[in-house]
Amino acid sequence: MAPIENSKDDAFHVNLAAIPALTGEWRARAVARLNSLTKPLGSLGRLEEIAARLVAIREEERPRFTRKAIFTLAADHGVTDEGVSAYPKAVTQQMVLNFLAGGAAINVLGRHGTIEIVVVDIGVDGDLGEAKGLVSKKVARGSRNMAREAAMSEAELDAALGVGIDLATWAAKQGHTLIGTGEMGIGNTTAASALTAVLTGRPVAQVTGRGTGLDEPGLKHKIEVIERALEVNRPNASDPLDALCKVGGLEIAGLTGLIVGAAARRIPVVMDGFISTSAAAVACALEPKVRQFLFAAHRSSEPGHAALLDFIGAAPLLDLQMRLGEGTGAALAMNLIDAAAKLLDEMATFSSAGVSEASA
Amino acid sequence: MAPIENSKDDAFHVNLAAIPALTGEWRARAVARLNSLTKPLGSLGRLEEIAARLVAIREEERPRFTRKAIFTLAADHGVTDEGVSAYPKAVTQQMVLNFLAGGAAINVLGRHGTIEIVVVDIGVDGDLGEAKGLVSKKVARGSRNMAREAAMSEAELDAALGVGIDLATWAAKQGHTLIGTGEMGIGNTTAASALTAVLTGRPVAQVTGRGTGLDEPGLKHKIEVIERALEVNRPNASDPLDALCKVGGLEIAGLTGLIVGAAARRIPVVMDGFISTSAAAVACALEPKVRQFLFAAHRSSEPGHAALLDFIGAAPLLDLQMRLGEGTGAALAMNLIDAAAKLLDEMATFSSAGVSEASA
Repeated sequence: MAPIENSKDDAFHVNLAAIPALTGEWRARAVARLNSLTKPLGSLGRLEEIAARLVAIREEERPRFTRKAIFTLAADHGVTDEGVSAYPKAVTQQMVLNFLAGGAAINVLGRHGTIEIVVVDIGVDGDLGEAKGLVSKKVARGSRNMAREAAMSEAELDAALGVGIDLATWAAKQGHTLIGTGEMGIGNTTAASALTAVLTGRPVAQVTGRGTGLDEPGLKHKIEVIERALEVNRPNASDPLDALCKVGGLEIAGLTGLIVGAAARRIPVVMDGFISTSAAAVACALEPKVRQFLFAAHRSSEPGHAALLDFIGAAPLLDLQMRLGEGTGAALAMNLIDAAAKLLDEMATFSSAGVSEASA
Repeated sequence: MAPIENSKDDAFHVNLAAIPALTGEWRARAVARLNSLTKPLGSLGRLEEIAARLVAIREEERPRFTRKAIFTLAADHGVTDEGVSAYPKAVTQQMVLNFLAGGAAINVLGRHGTIEIVVVDIGVDGDLGEAKGLVSKKVARGSRNMAREAAMSEAELDAALGVGIDLATWAAKQGHTLIGTGEMGIGNTTAASALTAVLTGRPVAQVTGRGTGLDEPGLKHKIEVIERALEVNRPNASDPLDALCKVGGLEIAGLTGLIVGAAARRIPVVMDGFISTSAAAVACALEPKVRQFLFAAHRSSEPGHAALLDFIGAAPLLDLQMRLGEGTGAALAMNLIDAAAKLLDEMATFSSAGVSEASA
């Protein structure tokens, strides 16, 4: 794997300012071609919308997505000290090793979809050292316990956002024209729910779910912990980076950076589930143009996810009651996006195939 | 392509009687394995249900689906004489040639998903002769105009059902362990809506849509034509083959045979959209055990489709507002089904990967 270089300190804000607006002209060209293909008008439904947006993002008449990557960012969460997860914290590191050995769900789906899975240690509380295949970008050994203090320092937040930019820069250099977001971090639905409550203004209880499998008392406790974290930190709802710093997580901040970096480079991003979408929501709150580059892979069964999709204004492609993370939903949705691009590129037109058109 | 042999005259009924019941034992084995894999319990959602059902259908602990085929059956419909479609009848034959040239949506998606597309002339009103790659199984040059008489004779119905059995037999011999249904036939949403009204008992207006793109007066006329067809033919609602014969179509009957033949051979079937599901509904009405072998690919935007899914008791995997047919929805859904099987087969277990399990 080619080395992933470090970007400059202000890279995140430079990228944020560089995100382009999509123009209607490219979209119109795509629609004209779609309407000339041998099928009833509009009969490919959402695949046509996807294809048109891909054209507008890439500014190519027939974009192809032969190189695809999912970035699975792993980090620990100090808030696990409060007992908010059904699994012990050690599982974050154990699962990273499972990713590197190719045995996790995301590995299976990556092979299935010919998607490179890039596993990044951005904040695992353990010594993964030079594990083969791992991208070591550790900012800290986990975030701090948000129920007592801010999850990150400002310096840690900046470093994590910068890691995301580095990954986007690397992806562009490698020729990846479609990327997905993924994550692993025991405790991270707690951070994502806290962020969701701040960004959307909804009550914590409405946007908090069972994560990896809490029972009813466990869920009640998790809600109380998040409410305490908001009380202790008082994140500023009109300052998304303040919220991210105080009640987010290192992998979430890394994904926010990745999404901003990808948008600045006209690389469409497939958001996985709840955690990934919380990172995307921060990016959209900072710069609404980001949403043009986002595709929502699926509707997670975590209740906060719907609130975030609503906040972003994105409709999920799949609804399979998945709630695994890692990038698994993104891997499946990338297949649909790739298919949409191939249909636009490869289908015959009415005139080339000698097929009669509909009567007016 | 290996030749497709003709089955015996009574093959359809022999196959119908041979459809096995799934046993809970295989399903339980699948669930035990799914629960041992490195993911929170149940977190792969519907992919887990799919995997468990595949195990029960195939009676293999870790079934794989390396060979997949979609059968796209083409036929014309005499009812197009009534002006029920936005496209001229000639498009059926033109699209068959497009399929054989590789330029249609189903070809693109077949290549995308590594799925063999088998194009069958079961009733095209034209001389396709020995077109390269075409499976010639023409029963008649289209069905008759159901607004005036029965769409098929009993002999034609039997022949079309037999073609489906032949295709299933061929698929099993070729080692295809997952098949999809597809179709092409200008006028066939009229037939499918008529069948849906008979099988589900719902009003024609509720189960009839715009097909390839009718306008409001066109839709109103289509509904009137279907109502006339039901009045003229008086299909027996408690005799699904009578309904199929009188208001169905040759490709629909072929697909009914294919589905029955596949179920008898423990080959799971991915139903495409409205037309395919009408064929499956006839099969389920004849033998409820058929439904165990069916996966609904997607929710078509044709209004009758939801009624049929309800009738069968199947929940679609995708909802992309597609309404193209050909097998396009099936091609996309096969990717999900294949993924579910690979997850079951390839994921590491908690013990093999050294990952801690959830606390009780």
